[in-house]
Amino acid sequence: MKLFLSTVIIIFSLSAQAAWSQEKQIVVEDFKPSSVNQPEKKFPQVNSQRRIRTSILAPIAHSVQLDIGGVKYDMQKDSNGIWIGESNPQDEGFHYYQLNIDGASVPDPGSLYFYGAGRLGSGIEIPSSDQDFFALKNVPHGLVSENIYFSKLTNSHRRCLIYTPAGYNENEKTRYPVLYLQHGSFENETGWTTQGRANLILDNLLALKQAIPMIIVMDNGYAYKSQSNKVKEGREESVFEEVLITEVIPMIDAKFRTISKRESRAIAGLSMGANQTMRIMMNHLDTFSYYGGFSGTANYPSTDVINVSTFLDGKYKEGNALNKKIKLFWLGLGTKEPIPFPGSVGAFRAMLEQQGIKYEYYESPETAHEWLTWRRCLNQFASKLFK
Amino acid sequence: MKLFLSTVIIIFSLSAQAAWSQEKQIVVEDFKPSSVNQPEKKFPQVNSQRRIRTSILAPIAHSVQLDIGGVKYDMQKDSNGIWIGESNPQDEGFHYYQLNIDGASVPDPGSLYFYGAGRLGSGIEIPSSDQDFFALKNVPHGLVSENIYFSKLTNSHRRCLIYTPAGYNENEKTRYPVLYLQHGSFENETGWTTQGRANLILDNLLALKQAIPMIIVMDNGYAYKSQSNKVKEGREESVFEEVLITEVIPMIDAKFRTISKRESRAIAGLSMGANQTMRIMMNHLDTFSYYGGFSGTANYPSTDVINVSTFLDGKYKEGNALNKKIKLFWLGLGTKEPIPFPGSVGAFRAMLEQQGIKYEYYESPETAHEWLTWRRCLNQFASKLFK
Repeated sequence: MKLFLSTVIIIFSLSAQAAWSQEKQIVVEDFKPSSVNQPEKKFPQVNSQRRIRTSILAPIAHSVQLDIGGVKYDMQKDSNGIWIGESNPQDEGFHYYQLNIDGASVPDPGSLYFYGAGRLGSGIEIPSSDQDFFALKNVPHGLVSENIYFSKLTNSHRRCLIYTPAGYNENEKTRYPVLYLQHGSFENETGWTTQGRANLILDNLLALKQAIPMIIVMDNGYAYKSQSNKVKEGREESVFEEVLITEVIPMIDAKFRTISKRESRAIAGLSMGANQTMRIMMNHLDTFSYYGGFSGTANYPSTDVINVSTFLDGKYKEGNALNKKIKLFWLGLGTKEPIPFPGSVGAFRAMLEQQGIKYEYYESPETAHEWLTWRRCLNQFASKLFK
Repeated sequence: MKLFLSTVIIIFSLSAQAAWSQEKQIVVEDFKPSSVNQPEKKFPQVNSQRRIRTSILAPIAHSVQLDIGGVKYDMQKDSNGIWIGESNPQDEGFHYYQLNIDGASVPDPGSLYFYGAGRLGSGIEIPSSDQDFFALKNVPHGLVSENIYFSKLTNSHRRCLIYTPAGYNENEKTRYPVLYLQHGSFENETGWTTQGRANLILDNLLALKQAIPMIIVMDNGYAYKSQSNKVKEGREESVFEEVLITEVIPMIDAKFRTISKRESRAIAGLSMGANQTMRIMMNHLDTFSYYGGFSGTANYPSTDVINVSTFLDGKYKEGNALNKKIKLFWLGLGTKEPIPFPGSVGAFRAMLEQQGIKYEYYESPETAHEWLTWRRCLNQFASKLFK
């Protein structure tokens, strides 16, 4: 009986697996053009299974592949020389991808382009169940302004983007708190408004009166003294902290109607930006009183127990003093993030708890180290600021 | 003797031609990365002959071509699968281009991307002798702001870009005149600040005190009633004029510190935008008093003699009245523009002269229907506004 039951279970399991496998192969034909396509472009497309399909004319190519999420999917050529192919189902949210034509990695001519992975490349949007919070809606919209400035520290022109909320231009006497918000590695100052939709997230929060009107400043986290001889761990030492503190903040306070005090200043970032801004926060508690770390902490990439005496020069040693000084210490992470993020953020949280340091922690369901995690983090975090 | 001289001349001509032809083949090895490359990208490059060289890894491709100015140049593959190749010398200024990999037209992964020819594609900058006027310099910089708005006329979200000059945010009482500035066909609202460098041109003019501080508004010239049943010449009828007059101008006057009167409002455009804005100018002489038409006029594409009684409903019939009303009617054209632009603009100028209508005319040396022509036009035109 026992053997029989086992056999039944095995047979049932095998046929269930086969059915699942077969179902997995069936591509549901309800593809629609991606919402981040170039105007009038029919491809790439997304279906209800969250598969991506794209197409390109390449009459004499040997091989065309759709390259997304670390997997290259072979596409097929029809008699007109048009290649078409699909990916497996993807996570909800925004993903970078590219085409591979006979070994050449190129952007898909159908999509808009986004700066990530150190280059302008294709992106696709898989509809998510909660996409309403970052949708373009008929609500009052803030402005996103490009501000070019000359940095003496880097001896170069740099650019930051500034979100001013709807009503900023009309309410000429009102002053606003400021969130300094940083991108991740191999991204730039455009990431938060293009991939991240920070402006739309704030527009929507403000329309629902779920956030305090605020200015958001997004700078480029890569800043080096071009003539510097100081080299640290093989790379030139970053001067981003000095650029932000001594050049960007004074410029923003002079050019925009800010409330220029620590109680009205927040700093946050994602991944590399979370690491950078956590260090800047702890070095400048007289400048900022709110902190947000999205998918990153300053112990990255270590997952070891943190030695609070030596970590960041002992800045977390006095838990009580920090609790009095910091208005919000906020961390967020996706539930599908890869190694080492869960372990590293986990070790950091354990340190905070050991030190009795108050913090808030959010997990983004079913998302990895990607922009839907960070959009959700911003949505949560921004609603808690300056209240 | 006469025969002998002729023979000498013929022989001399032939050898000069051969020498010239041979010299033409020699590629001077002083290539440098283009100024509009993505960060850290070594290709595409430009040399002193104004040739473009680019390179891409495509190990199993049959054929890779550099496609620029209507010519496809074959590239060559080395033993590592890296393709490299050059174009013939190009005109000074900005050009769109693309790569062709086994028949697939794709952006070059090395360049920045620009919206033109109805898609985001590669661009390259050939240094020009007068490039100082549009260079990024250490002068005060204005802001370029993205403004999303909902258009009732098109029942859609649209976007315009607004340049506010350096000092706009700091001088909270100052009001500014406004230039409405339009892109060409298959381009969009980003063209004037990316390809056109309108913000840098104004920054530089203002630093030299060669222009009056002004706001520039750049909208998208494509606007249609999505549900419209009206179809004109196979295409849906444009409502851009109504969008600009009844939606954009009131919005800008409410949101920015404008001087809201005709004496402080200019309108200009390039190519399709010149045609559109000329019609809008003539229909709304109570709204605008300055006009600039860059490489285009409202008789395009006709080169016929204009019948002033019927052209634009007879709006040019009363030359004296127009001279009193219009503060500046300005036209510009490149000396290398193709058919039908010289003939069409020529016919329009002949009409203005016949009607005794005062206008200024500028020719951009050695440029065709391209952005260096339009940068130069803006530089000239903007310096004459609101004075």
